[in-house]
Amino acid sequence: MGKLLVVGSVALDTVRTPFGEASEVLGGSAAYFATAASYFTTVDLIAVVGKDFPDQHLKFLKSRGIDLTGLEQRTGETFRWKGEYSYQLNEARTLETRPNVFETFRPRIPERYRTPALLFLGNIDPELQLDVLRQVQRPLLVACDTMNYWIDRKREALWRVLEQVDVLVVNDGEARALGGQPNLVQVARDILTKGPKHLIIKRGEYGVLLFNHKQTFGAPAFPLEQVRDPTGAGDTFAGGFMGYLAATGNLSEASLRQAMIFGSVMASFTVEAFSLDRLRVLDYKEIEARFREFKRLTHFEDLS
Amino acid sequence: MGKLLVVGSVALDTVRTPFGEASEVLGGSAAYFATAASYFTTVDLIAVVGKDFPDQHLKFLKSRGIDLTGLEQRTGETFRWKGEYSYQLNEARTLETRPNVFETFRPRIPERYRTPALLFLGNIDPELQLDVLRQVQRPLLVACDTMNYWIDRKREALWRVLEQVDVLVVNDGEARALGGQPNLVQVARDILTKGPKHLIIKRGEYGVLLFNHKQTFGAPAFPLEQVRDPTGAGDTFAGGFMGYLAATGNLSEASLRQAMIFGSVMASFTVEAFSLDRLRVLDYKEIEARFREFKRLTHFEDLS
Repeated sequence: MGKLLVVGSVALDTVRTPFGEASEVLGGSAAYFATAASYFTTVDLIAVVGKDFPDQHLKFLKSRGIDLTGLEQRTGETFRWKGEYSYQLNEARTLETRPNVFETFRPRIPERYRTPALLFLGNIDPELQLDVLRQVQRPLLVACDTMNYWIDRKREALWRVLEQVDVLVVNDGEARALGGQPNLVQVARDILTKGPKHLIIKRGEYGVLLFNHKQTFGAPAFPLEQVRDPTGAGDTFAGGFMGYLAATGNLSEASLRQAMIFGSVMASFTVEAFSLDRLRVLDYKEIEARFREFKRLTHFEDLS
Repeated sequence: MGKLLVVGSVALDTVRTPFGEASEVLGGSAAYFATAASYFTTVDLIAVVGKDFPDQHLKFLKSRGIDLTGLEQRTGETFRWKGEYSYQLNEARTLETRPNVFETFRPRIPERYRTPALLFLGNIDPELQLDVLRQVQRPLLVACDTMNYWIDRKREALWRVLEQVDVLVVNDGEARALGGQPNLVQVARDILTKGPKHLIIKRGEYGVLLFNHKQTFGAPAFPLEQVRDPTGAGDTFAGGFMGYLAATGNLSEASLRQAMIFGSVMASFTVEAFSLDRLRVLDYKEIEARFREFKRLTHFEDLS
């Protein structure tokens, strides 16, 4: 299958958790997504950074085989995000967001990116997500993320995105906000009626759910002894999920389920260290080994 | 295998949830546990109620084949619990607790209950749990529940219980309080070093985890379209879990995993209605059908 394209943010994060802190480290949805996906396939990246963006990060992303033709470097400062987590690691508290050059980001898709096999629309303004969809030939599979900020402020544009995508990947709070009710099964039915064919709900330390018209799939998160920094878990989940699908070209139900596990595996590695530090030293053998551990974790015999 | 013995409370509950309310309905850990377990095996029950306890509830419990020889009926009023749930259904807010005759409950085990194959010590004072353990011949498997109230006030007695039981069944908040740290994997290691061979962590709508020295097992909760009243979910989980083990007599790892699913199945039915109302009309075929649905929910192909 062809390439995987991601549009999102590349940022410099400053993060504090009960287990330490990291200052001005590589972050952003597209950086997390692309790095995770790069273990499975080649990735084209669309994002914007400022002139202050450290060369070492560009080198790192390139070293993962990520195509940075679509990474604009503009006058001004890179997107900064500052956040902290309490022991309740499932939710970040944002201390500061400075979009900087990201504020006026208008994704421009280079000619050779325009026929992606799979497309991931990271959490950006739904108007920009629509803009991207207009610029590319319809991929085999489009997935998108969003956040409460857009659900509250750009609901109409967001629904226009959702009508055109195959997979919506959100956390449970976002799903409930979008569906307007507390019960996730009812939320899923509502969202699937109006938009995407698949709804993936990320529940952090509680795992993931996949709803579609035919089936529901659920998996716990991998129980970890050390969660140092949950930042990027959702985007690396999406990266593992889409990366695996792009690598195999198989979009069957069975393959989607395996992709959900590969996504969970990538997220589980990511949170073991700050920023992308765990993924920097990760080996594909470790990914496969953890996939098999996931199988042992969740397996039980059916009734005869 | 022989019989399953449960010691716990039988109560009259008044419950309000966003989906309705129920007044003075059958509740209590032993009532929920025994009813769920009765779908798999015969159950001996130890508890106390007052003279005001409605005959219809006695008739119902008997109709489920539960042996009530050990259910004392004493002068005074039955244990009353009043609670409510918000849309965040995972946690009850207790409005009122009137232990009444339960306050001076001293479990006395009738002669013919004293050689149980399996024993479940419901959430009661750890001193009473120790008292029960002294009165019975060591069963093949003992499981117990507890709560933060005892973890805070009777920690020493509780650890003496835990040294003697095989399985501790608690929710994640209780596990963290007992282990004294936020990370569940570390909590599990700590608890398993000092006490039981198995730790089961109930996470409500997020599913269950089983830790032992060899393995970890995790399953999501069954995604339900309607959760009307979460009361009793934990005790019916334990009832399904222990009931299945008692019925098969198989305590292998594979059997424990299936028992975790049967427990989850029973909990999933329980929360669909107030009190024990869903279990009153439940059929064993429905239990098996939902077990198979659980398999479909969680199944994915391993790597080849």
